[in-house]
Amino acid sequence: MPWELPRDLDTPALVVDIDVLEANVGAMATDLAARHIALRPHVKTHKSVEIARRQRAAGATGLTVATIGEAEVFADAGFDDLFIAYPIVAGGPKADRLRALLGRAHLRVGVDSRRAAAMLGRALGPHSGLAARIELDSGQHRSGVAPAEAAVVAQACADAGIEVEGVFTHPGHAYGGPGAVAGAAEDEARVLAAGAAALAQAGFDARVRSGGSTPTVRRHLPLTDPGPRSPRARAPVVEQRPGSYVFNDRIQVALGSCTPEGVSLVVAATVVSTAQPGRFVVDAGSKALSSDRVDFLPGFGVVVGAAGRGAAGAAAEPDGPDAVVVRLSEHHGVVETARRRPDIGDVVAVVPNHVCPVVDHFDHYVVVRDGVVVDRWPVDARGRLT
Amino acid sequence: MPWELPRDLDTPALVVDIDVLEANVGAMATDLAARHIALRPHVKTHKSVEIARRQRAAGATGLTVATIGEAEVFADAGFDDLFIAYPIVAGGPKADRLRALLGRAHLRVGVDSRRAAAMLGRALGPHSGLAARIELDSGQHRSGVAPAEAAVVAQACADAGIEVEGVFTHPGHAYGGPGAVAGAAEDEARVLAAGAAALAQAGFDARVRSGGSTPTVRRHLPLTDPGPRSPRARAPVVEQRPGSYVFNDRIQVALGSCTPEGVSLVVAATVVSTAQPGRFVVDAGSKALSSDRVDFLPGFGVVVGAAGRGAAGAAAEPDGPDAVVVRLSEHHGVVETARRRPDIGDVVAVVPNHVCPVVDHFDHYVVVRDGVVVDRWPVDARGRLT
Repeated sequence: MPWELPRDLDTPALVVDIDVLEANVGAMATDLAARHIALRPHVKTHKSVEIARRQRAAGATGLTVATIGEAEVFADAGFDDLFIAYPIVAGGPKADRLRALLGRAHLRVGVDSRRAAAMLGRALGPHSGLAARIELDSGQHRSGVAPAEAAVVAQACADAGIEVEGVFTHPGHAYGGPGAVAGAAEDEARVLAAGAAALAQAGFDARVRSGGSTPTVRRHLPLTDPGPRSPRARAPVVEQRPGSYVFNDRIQVALGSCTPEGVSLVVAATVVSTAQPGRFVVDAGSKALSSDRVDFLPGFGVVVGAAGRGAAGAAAEPDGPDAVVVRLSEHHGVVETARRRPDIGDVVAVVPNHVCPVVDHFDHYVVVRDGVVVDRWPVDARGRLT
Repeated sequence: MPWELPRDLDTPALVVDIDVLEANVGAMATDLAARHIALRPHVKTHKSVEIARRQRAAGATGLTVATIGEAEVFADAGFDDLFIAYPIVAGGPKADRLRALLGRAHLRVGVDSRRAAAMLGRALGPHSGLAARIELDSGQHRSGVAPAEAAVVAQACADAGIEVEGVFTHPGHAYGGPGAVAGAAEDEARVLAAGAAALAQAGFDARVRSGGSTPTVRRHLPLTDPGPRSPRARAPVVEQRPGSYVFNDRIQVALGSCTPEGVSLVVAATVVSTAQPGRFVVDAGSKALSSDRVDFLPGFGVVVGAAGRGAAGAAAEPDGPDAVVVRLSEHHGVVETARRRPDIGDVVAVVPNHVCPVVDHFDHYVVVRDGVVVDRWPVDARGRLT
């Protein structure tokens, strides 16, 4: 995947290829529509109103966000169906912010404890319009309850005056490596089906069974047309919340979520030092690339191409994916390569390990088509941590 | 170090204890003054005009920054002696930005290659007023040349019309672990002395020998009073650029840079899930705590105390430093503890591994004294990556 980068970028820069982005947005929408699965993309990846609009135009039924702050940004931009896929604790200023949001969006939140349900009820009162989805643990062992406990949490929601609309899970253990994805997808479907059955048995609505991760999203068997005789009501997963698929990244390529050509985002970085043999240093460090790493890949990212901007202005030889970012300081990325090194001043494209925290380090995207800048988009919900 | 946190924080929040901060600022200034070493603190740690003003008031002779963007923010705030301790490549928009900065600040930059020197010369022309410090590698093997090569780079600066004022290094290998600090400090002094000697021998000015890292800064032997007969001119290190010391963090405590009581900053986080046994989940993940880790410490941070904000409003039992943040997702921190777990809704204090990237995730500091909010300071240079 050689990247043609525009000249005169002020690096480090977040560069998005709009054609690849739009192809990713369209393909996911088409694939899920063919399976009769609703798409509620997670916008914590891109935090961009421009990209969310494209997702909506392609058929997204609503958005998933991680925080109340992200919900506020997208509600401001006119998105009125929002799921905060997070165990929201309605303490302190968050109670007021939730109340304000409920005035302008259909809002769903995650709940995985009786205590959080009670706090939501106290903060918002009955008939607030808030809907809850019970979070299930499908194998990541982070948050979420076992299916057998779902009805207890649902009852606490009902007691607190909060409508229960179903269950959700994030099969984060899919990120354990290429060998973990298929099993995680199975866990996801199994746990959602079991949690929904437990809710239904206790008399709760379980119409929403929401899964979501880019590695697992395409692993689920296509559903037949729901039609009148093949009720969607029995499908284990009726909604998916992938996020990373709009950009993809090095981890998604390694997990088989996409081909290398499906990566729509790179960090453009300038070579600033070649003082050490066999290495070069670029101006993208941990404050740009983030320090996220995984057991099944070395380093923090790969350099996939280089465009000259040095004294001679000559294009440097593209560096293959064997040019690995082996070390990060805050503003230095140390790249090891056995190939010819680019020169100081050359601009190279870095595919980061994990794109989501990378985006959060930047104010805007440089949007390119065929290597030419066609737009700049703000990272609207950057840093909305609360 | 039990932390008293204010109530009703919107978490995650960056909380600074102003008394501890001011003690850290004062002690470093006093210690270096006693050794006749100039203090040019690195503000990439705090990115805060308020804190830089306190450093100046305590005796800092100028500031160190990591990027042109940080230099712009501090120049705007009236700081007119700035060292960009980075191998600056004056390509693209950066050339214009450097020119604009030179109009309002005494500006020094790092140079570690003939090519970067030539690019600076072409971008700025002769007599621009820019000063160069030659970067030396003292053992981190990131950027910087060996002392023997310093004169070649200095000559390239001179050829490009840029004044050479000395040498600098960052002994980043001090972060290899508690056993690495003393040796790194020795390397730092040795390499600075050798580089300065090489410059002087070639006829260049070597008045600046600038070292800098919080772990090594106090390891250098006190100098005798420079006076007329004990020339400061022969000291290996005449300036230091520590950054983290204003806040300290878990790594600094482990390296012996400070006591646990010297940590002035925590991330306040709310417990959002206790669904998994032996663990609790807080709302500070990698987008707040960063994913920085080191070989000599487990996990991503420690929970050092808890103040209740739950239903009962009761203070939770403080969790000792054995409550380790063992895993991070973007908005989830998974904490393992053998002690009694805090309740959902309780607010806990997390000491992060490495404070610098943490600060860059937040818009502002919540400034407290004795657990009461006394101010809010913006993170002025947040995200100034370019």
